[in-house]
Amino acid sequence: MSRWAPDARERLEAAALDLFVENGYEDTTVAQIAERAGLNRATFFRHFADKREVLFGGEDLLAGSFADGIHAAAPDATLTECLQAAFASAGVVMTPQQRAKAAQRVLVAAANSEVQERGLLKQARIAGAISAALRERGADELTARLGAQVGMLAFSIAVERWMGSDDDEPFPVHAAAALSDLRVRAAELGSPSGPSS
Amino acid sequence: MSRWAPDARERLEAAALDLFVENGYEDTTVAQIAERAGLNRATFFRHFADKREVLFGGEDLLAGSFADGIHAAAPDATLTECLQAAFASAGVVMTPQQRAKAAQRVLVAAANSEVQERGLLKQARIAGAISAALRERGADELTARLGAQVGMLAFSIAVERWMGSDDDEPFPVHAAAALSDLRVRAAELGSPSGPSS
Repeated sequence: MSRWAPDARERLEAAALDLFVENGYEDTTVAQIAERAGLNRATFFRHFADKREVLFGGEDLLAGSFADGIHAAAPDATLTECLQAAFASAGVVMTPQQRAKAAQRVLVAAANSEVQERGLLKQARIAGAISAALRERGADELTARLGAQVGMLAFSIAVERWMGSDDDEPFPVHAAAALSDLRVRAAELGSPSGPSS
Repeated sequence: MSRWAPDARERLEAAALDLFVENGYEDTTVAQIAERAGLNRATFFRHFADKREVLFGGEDLLAGSFADGIHAAAPDATLTECLQAAFASAGVVMTPQQRAKAAQRVLVAAANSEVQERGLLKQARIAGAISAALRERGADELTARLGAQVGMLAFSIAVERWMGSDDDEPFPVHAAAALSDLRVRAAELGSPSGPSS
């Protein structure tokens, strides 16, 4: 395979995930990832700053598409509708191919706190992109930050359900359902928290 | 000063923060931190696993005191009241001395993404402790996770206000106010998000 293959990035991501799951994140080298992808180390470093970044390439795309979705929402959209618009626009990134990768990434992150840390940093940046987009629509500071946190939680829950489901329901359907579940609970934060209420 | 001083941990934390702010996190070594504290490297490593941990010693205490507060809340407490109980119990950790340190930590974290990552991992663990404590009270999975996220956001906002205020209002007062501000907004997630509404 040519080292100039246009799909080098995807091949490196797939090779890295396979190796991380097979041999562990710690014991996998960049050289091995490049070799498995049929590329060389220099090509790896043209696409990713380090070994951890190869796991999180999609996150930067997500931050941008969430923000685009929020900007494009109707002027009188509720905060929940803005978040739904964000998730709808993320459907392009959250493909069935990504669904398989997501499950591998969960395995890798569960075994390595360095990977978890990088994942959390990426999540914080996505949350920052969501709250910035909400502020630009006129939401106040606290509302924008709350919207970002609720949105990120809805996103996590939706990813878990999407990975665990055996049908091919597209990601935005899971995201809308998770968001709706959270909105109901958010309205009841002042109600008794136990199951008997 | 004796290397067996009972306040070794606090001295190491204070020395580390001072050096990180003065010389930068990257350029500060464990040996320098120990020297500034009048201790040796071995003593440092008896208290902290690595250079990053010296910044986050309080986080593990916080996770425990939040959980204790939630467990001790009245049986019919609302989720908001549970979080208030968590913050009230954290008042012991959030001393005026910690307030000065918090401002230093913000400076250090802003300049170093490695530090940010570790901070986010600690926050995720505190959120995990909150959601576990809420589940043990009978809250369903999503309510517990939402409560943890809202609680952590209230905590962050309260820390920012606490650091920025020029009075000596105790931390739990800031935390209760932040939580109340968020609860009002959480109830309105389905309302238009702009300022005109």
